[in-house]
Amino acid sequence: MHATSEQRAPVTVIGLGSMGTALARAFLRAGHPTTVWNRTPEKADGLVAEGAVRAATVAEAASAAELIVICVLDHRAVRAILDAAGDALAGRVVVNLTSSTPEEARQAAARAAERGVRYLDGAIMAVPTMIGSERALIFYGGPEEVYRRLEPTLAAVAGAGAYLGEDVGRPSLFDVALLGLMWTTWAGFIHALALVTGGKVEAAEFLPHARTWFDHVIAPEVPRIAEQVDRRRHPGDGSALAMQAAAIDHLVEAGRALKVDTELPEYLQDRARQAIERGHADDSFASLFEVLSAPTD
Amino acid sequence: MHATSEQRAPVTVIGLGSMGTALARAFLRAGHPTTVWNRTPEKADGLVAEGAVRAATVAEAASAAELIVICVLDHRAVRAILDAAGDALAGRVVVNLTSSTPEEARQAAARAAERGVRYLDGAIMAVPTMIGSERALIFYGGPEEVYRRLEPTLAAVAGAGAYLGEDVGRPSLFDVALLGLMWTTWAGFIHALALVTGGKVEAAEFLPHARTWFDHVIAPEVPRIAEQVDRRRHPGDGSALAMQAAAIDHLVEAGRALKVDTELPEYLQDRARQAIERGHADDSFASLFEVLSAPTD
Ligand SMILES: NC(=O)c1ccc[n+]([C@@H]2O[C@H](COP(=O)([O-])OP(=O)(O)OC[C@H]3O[C@@H](n4cnc5c(N)ncnc54)[C@H](OP(=O)(O)O)[C@@H]3O)[C@@H](O)[C@H]2O)c1
Ligand SMILES: NC(=O)c1ccc[n+]([C@@H]2O[C@H](COP(=O)([O-])OP(=O)(O)OC[C@H]3O[C@@H](n4cnc5c(N)ncnc54)[C@H](OP(=O)(O)O)[C@@H]3O)[C@@H](O)[C@H]2O)c1
Repeated sequence: MHATSEQRAPVTVIGLGSMGTALARAFLRAGHPTTVWNRTPEKADGLVAEGAVRAATVAEAASAAELIVICVLDHRAVRAILDAAGDALAGRVVVNLTSSTPEEARQAAARAAERGVRYLDGAIMAVPTMIGSERALIFYGGPEEVYRRLEPTLAAVAGAGAYLGEDVGRPSLFDVALLGLMWTTWAGFIHALALVTGGKVEAAEFLPHARTWFDHVIAPEVPRIAEQVDRRRHPGDGSALAMQAAAIDHLVEAGRALKVDTELPEYLQDRARQAIERGHADDSFASLFEVLSAPTD
Repeated sequence: MHATSEQRAPVTVIGLGSMGTALARAFLRAGHPTTVWNRTPEKADGLVAEGAVRAATVAEAASAAELIVICVLDHRAVRAILDAAGDALAGRVVVNLTSSTPEEARQAAARAAERGVRYLDGAIMAVPTMIGSERALIFYGGPEEVYRRLEPTLAAVAGAGAYLGEDVGRPSLFDVALLGLMWTTWAGFIHALALVTGGKVEAAEFLPHARTWFDHVIAPEVPRIAEQVDRRRHPGDGSALAMQAAAIDHLVEAGRALKVDTELPEYLQDRARQAIERGHADDSFASLFEVLSAPTD
C-alpha cells in the first residue's frame, strides 16, 4: 500500500509531545523520510526505532526537509523554535500546527516572513489517536499555491484537510469557535444533568429525551440562526425572545431550588434581557447575536 | 377519519392564549365536545365558531367535563383559576399544561388535592402550530392510572406524550433542563458566529464546519458524559480537562481581540479551573458536573 521512501518528500517534525509524535508517526507510516527534534531529546527514541532520524539541533532539523511541521505547546514555544532555527529555515515552508489565537498565528507568520520562510498555519481538530486517519480534520490557512503543493504530503496526517484561504488567522479562528461551541454544548448538557439528577432522575433516563430534543428541536434551528445572522434580521416567527426570556426565569428558579449552579442560565437571562432592551422582544433567539457580537461595555 | 362527537369524551380547556387555543382546536378536530373559558371572553369567538361551547365562568367550565385542561400564562394564573373554580372541580381531573417550575407544579398538585381534584402536570415541548400533530411532545407526571385512562383523549393534542412517572414535578424538571440545553447550545453557536463574523467570515461559510463538528465530535461525547455522570467517574482518556482549560484561554483571548462577549468562555474557564482545583485535572470535561451540581457558594 505505502509508496517507498524514495517517492515521498522528506518531512521534519519539531515538537514530540503526544500530538507531534502522532504526526511524525503518520508521516513515517506513509513513507516520508522523517526527521524529528524535541527539546527533551529522549522523546524521539520510539520514533527513531520506527525509522525517524533524530536531529541534534533545531537548525539541523530545519535543514533536513523543505517542509517543517511545528507542533509544540504554545505560541511562546513556537517563537523560541523560530529563533533557534536562525537562517536554517530560509526558503523552506513552516506548517505551524500549534494551537494558538488568530493574532498569535499572524505574529508567527510575520516572524517567519522576516526570515524568508513561507508559512502555513494549521489547527488540528482531532486527538492524537485520530492522526493519520480519514477522520482527522486539520484546518489550514496561508498562501494557496504553497498549500496546494504540500497537500499530498499533508494528507498523510489528516484525511480531512480543509483549506480556509490566505488568512493565516482563520484556522485558529475556526478552531476556537468550534471548540467554544463544543464546550458550551457540553456545559449545557452537563447543567441539564445537574438539574435532573438533582431531581433524582438518572442521566441515562434523561439521555434519550435530550437526544430526541436535540435532533428535532435544537439542531433544525441552527441553519436558521446562521441565515438570520448573515441577514442581520431575526424575525421571531411565533417564538419571540420575550416569551423565551420568561421561560429562562423558570430555569433559573429550578436551578436555585435544586442548589445547582445558576450562572449559566443567569447569563442567558441577562443577555436575553439586553437583546430585549435593544428592541428584539419580538425577534427570535438569534437576535442574541446583536448583543454577543457588540457587548455594551 | 374523525370519530363522531358522541364517541369522544368531553373536554374543558381553560386559558385561550396562543397555546390554549391550539389545544382546544386540536380537541375539537379530534371530535371531543369542547368547552372553553378565557379571562378575556372574546378570545373564544373563533373556537365557538368552530363548535366549542363558551362557559361564562370557570366553575361552569369545570362542570362541563371530567377532564379540565388548564393552559394559562403562569403559576399565579393557575392558582387564580383553581380558586375561582371552587368546588366545581371536585372529583374531576385537572391536567395543568402551564409552564412552571417543579416546585410550582407540586404546589398546584397540593392545592388541587385539598379540593378533592386529581391532578396531572404536563410540560408542552412544542409550539402552538405543532399541537395536534405527531411531532408534538408533551411530558406528563402524576398518578399513573389517571394518566393511562386519559391517554387516548390527550393523544388528540400531542402524538408524542411521554409519561415520566408519579412525580408531578418531573415534567417541569425535564422541560427546564431541555430548554436550558437548547438555549445554551444556541448561545454557543451564536457566540461562535460572533467570533467568525468578527473575523470577516460569513455564518453560511462556517455553518457546514459547525455541523460536521457537531455530528462527529460534539454529539458522540454526549452519551459518554451521561454515563460518566451516572457513575460519578470521569476518566480523561487522553483528553484531560487541564489541556482543555488551556485551550479555553485561547477562546477567551480571541474573543477579547475581536471585541466579542467573553463572559460565556470565561464562565467555562472558571468552572474548568474549579474542577481542576477539586482534583479533576486528568479527568474529562464531564467532571464539570461535580462543580455545576455542587457549586462552592
Ligand atoms: N493532544 C491533543 O489532543 C491536541 C489536539 C489538538 C491540538 N493539539 C495541540 O497540539 C499542540 C501540542 O500538543 P501536545 O498534546 O503534543 O502537547 P504535549 O504533549 O504537552 O507536548 C508539548 C510539546 O511542546 C514542547 N515544548 C513546550 N515548550 C517548549 C519550548 N519552550 N521550546 C521547545 N519545545 C517546547 C514540549 O517539549 P518537551 O518534551 O521538551 O517538554 C513537547 O514536545 C498544542 O498546541 C495543542 O493545543 C493537541
Ligand atoms: N406559545 C408557546 O410556544 C408555548 C410553548 C410551550 C409552552 N407554552 C406555555 O403555555 C402557557 C400559555 O402560553 P401561551 O403562549 O398561550 O400564552 P399567551 O398567548 O400569552 O396566553 C396567556 C393566557 O393566560 C391567561 N391569563 C394570564 N393571566 C391570567 C390570570 N391571572 N387569570 C386567568 N387567565 C390568565 C390569558 O388570558 P387573557 O386572554 O385574559 O389575557 C391567556 O389566555 C404558558 O405557560 C407557556 O409557557 C407556550
